[in-house]
Amino acid sequence: MNCELISVGTEILLGDILNTNARFLSKELAALGISLMHQSTVGDNEKRLKACLDHAFSGADTVILTGGLGPTPDDLTKEVCASYFGKKLIMNEDILKEIKAYFSRKGLTMPDSNSKQALVPENSTVLPNKNGTAPGLIMEKENKKIILLPGPPREMEPMFTDYVIPYLKRFSHSIIKSRTVRTFGIGESAMSEKVSDLLENENPTVAPYAKDGEALLRITAKAESEAEAERLISPVTEEIKARLGTYIYGIDAESIEEATVSLMKERGVTAAFAESCTAGLCAKRITDISGASQVFNCGVVSYSNEIKSKVLGVRANDLARFGAVSDIVAAQMALGVKKLSGADYGVAVTGMAGPTSDDPSKPVGLIYIAVTDGKNLYLKEFHGRNGGNCRDYNRFVSASNAINQLRLCIIHSPELRSEGSIEEFINSYPRN
Amino acid sequence: MNCELISVGTEILLGDILNTNARFLSKELAALGISLMHQSTVGDNEKRLKACLDHAFSGADTVILTGGLGPTPDDLTKEVCASYFGKKLIMNEDILKEIKAYFSRKGLTMPDSNSKQALVPENSTVLPNKNGTAPGLIMEKENKKIILLPGPPREMEPMFTDYVIPYLKRFSHSIIKSRTVRTFGIGESAMSEKVSDLLENENPTVAPYAKDGEALLRITAKAESEAEAERLISPVTEEIKARLGTYIYGIDAESIEEATVSLMKERGVTAAFAESCTAGLCAKRITDISGASQVFNCGVVSYSNEIKSKVLGVRANDLARFGAVSDIVAAQMALGVKKLSGADYGVAVTGMAGPTSDDPSKPVGLIYIAVTDGKNLYLKEFHGRNGGNCRDYNRFVSASNAINQLRLCIIHSPELRSEGSIEEFINSYPRN
Repeated sequence: MNCELISVGTEILLGDILNTNARFLSKELAALGISLMHQSTVGDNEKRLKACLDHAFSGADTVILTGGLGPTPDDLTKEVCASYFGKKLIMNEDILKEIKAYFSRKGLTMPDSNSKQALVPENSTVLPNKNGTAPGLIMEKENKKIILLPGPPREMEPMFTDYVIPYLKRFSHSIIKSRTVRTFGIGESAMSEKVSDLLENENPTVAPYAKDGEALLRITAKAESEAEAERLISPVTEEIKARLGTYIYGIDAESIEEATVSLMKERGVTAAFAESCTAGLCAKRITDISGASQVFNCGVVSYSNEIKSKVLGVRANDLARFGAVSDIVAAQMALGVKKLSGADYGVAVTGMAGPTSDDPSKPVGLIYIAVTDGKNLYLKEFHGRNGGNCRDYNRFVSASNAINQLRLCIIHSPELRSEGSIEEFINSYPRN
Repeated sequence: MNCELISVGTEILLGDILNTNARFLSKELAALGISLMHQSTVGDNEKRLKACLDHAFSGADTVILTGGLGPTPDDLTKEVCASYFGKKLIMNEDILKEIKAYFSRKGLTMPDSNSKQALVPENSTVLPNKNGTAPGLIMEKENKKIILLPGPPREMEPMFTDYVIPYLKRFSHSIIKSRTVRTFGIGESAMSEKVSDLLENENPTVAPYAKDGEALLRITAKAESEAEAERLISPVTEEIKARLGTYIYGIDAESIEEATVSLMKERGVTAAFAESCTAGLCAKRITDISGASQVFNCGVVSYSNEIKSKVLGVRANDLARFGAVSDIVAAQMALGVKKLSGADYGVAVTGMAGPTSDDPSKPVGLIYIAVTDGKNLYLKEFHGRNGGNCRDYNRFVSASNAINQLRLCIIHSPELRSEGSIEEFINSYPRN
């Protein structure tokens, strides 16, 4: 079975709404092992919708359309599709009764225009709508199928799950299974080079991609069963794990914060964060994970030198001499928040997020991360972006790097370099 | 000018990512008055991409493609489009130099595979990429145009704004101009009722919508010039301002945090935040705004009772008796962070974000906000969502409410109720 999606609606073409239906359906079809080669979006226009159907059926046998099933005259998806298959529309009294009941449950009388929604193409299957008035429809002609679904996600999604999945399962003989290997601290190209031979694989395929400062590998198998797909994916996953080591922070849907919170729960350790340029983003991302209170108790956003000294105990003369964006300040922030909170690890971030720098010796994008377990210091200096819309990016990847540095510290990663004793590091700096 | 969009990428067809590029571009084209009739999404596949180009050029003269400009072998958008227009690819030494410089700024050496991104179709216009390595391209052939943009939104959006809009403006003769009136603290229906007569307008149109716990009104005019559109929009905006008063926090792209930071700069006041359930999100959103350090110096994420007492001075017996989610704790957190930071205002948030509550008397979604200027207390209790994916929503709207409460306090809004002296409020509670 080859499938195509057509989203109908001027509001999508105008950019007023985000097309989340296309994503939902793409994901569901992929899970069913149904190939989806193409999606399109078109306005409520008869001629252009017909052209889309022609293009879709040139490559697919099944076309799913969402939207344009409403009661107003510009809603014409059903009419165009029925005529495309040469089917007449017939008033369905049961559906009409249900639509009237839907309105009366809300204490309203059905407007006349809604009776249009009870017109059904001859010989079609009606899919009940539990959350609205427009029923879904399945029409077949020879070996072609058209599936019509309402546009609002809260009506479309349960209808798809309840009625369309069981229908489609009859035609699908294979499944597609994917696994995503998530890495941090290595670029997409460098990662790809380490697995370049695997990228040539045919089943499972291995494809690299980059997202929000991370590099990922997607392994995708086509098979007749879950077990068979797993048998194909598993050895490739192991091979990738062996080659990428602790660059890998997680498999599948996990984010770096989710992976780190899980790891901390597993090891029974806690952490506190002192944030300057990320200003709460580390704490926010850690606590996005439900149950984070087991591993996180305290964050300090020290957005001025005074607060760095007063709350975290950073020495004022180091701030004056080396600036807030420096390794020595990062180290003292990390130790300060560890002492304040009593957590097992103190993590600090300080940097120039941009768009401008207030210190000519510190370029925008210069970031220092410090993690301490109370004894040793683990520092990282890195360079984000400078220019364009760099602020959001630098803050996001700084928080990712801080969380990843904590993860590397907890697992004693070989990629992590210790600076030795944090007290000695801090005291090695001149006090003026 | 008739335009079509083609989004290239298997990750969209598999539903791994949401196609926000299509929405961004649709909105931008609508604003330029350029008709967009059709969008499609296709995988990284030469034959199917060519079929999409054929279909697109059957109805449009300009096709914008996003994605597939990366360094890996499966990225083939540029290659297919160049061959579609019969153009050769030529190595561009300037771009190669820039890509190498991009890597060296990050302390890395350019992997060989990235040199592919410096290949440019003959006679094309190169669009610089400030946020990544793949440049954009504009190719023309007879009266047809192909515009190639990178897939990552952080790279695509500024490139479109900086280079593609000026290019497209040469071909567009009418404009569509919109203004968005942003409100906080009033629901979409209540807001709509206050302006119901304006919703009948034809030019400009006025349309209500709701987003992320806020209600907005979009005023849209179609005209031959900017000035003409402004003349249509301006009186309607003034009428709406008169009717909605201090519910309105801003006009157009401003967020509640941007409006509040601007207001604070204007008034020369500072604020500090003590956050429990939002855990850094208030601080993060305030500091999303460049220059926030003028008005914000300190945030405390007190994610345990111990930190609430130790860092913010919340009385342990109030925590034990009334729980962390209570008005008395919110008040003490606000006063505590004001004293710690020396800021003009202390703002506190504590609540049950969910998904579950650890206190049977406190339902998920119960949130307390406290703001103090050191003398008086301004409290707000509200109820977010309970059930479903409520955690993210509750955290987001709690932060919005906290920032809005600060705004209302600064402007002495008539919608704000004072509890009187904060010291008296705190001391009125039994100390056990």
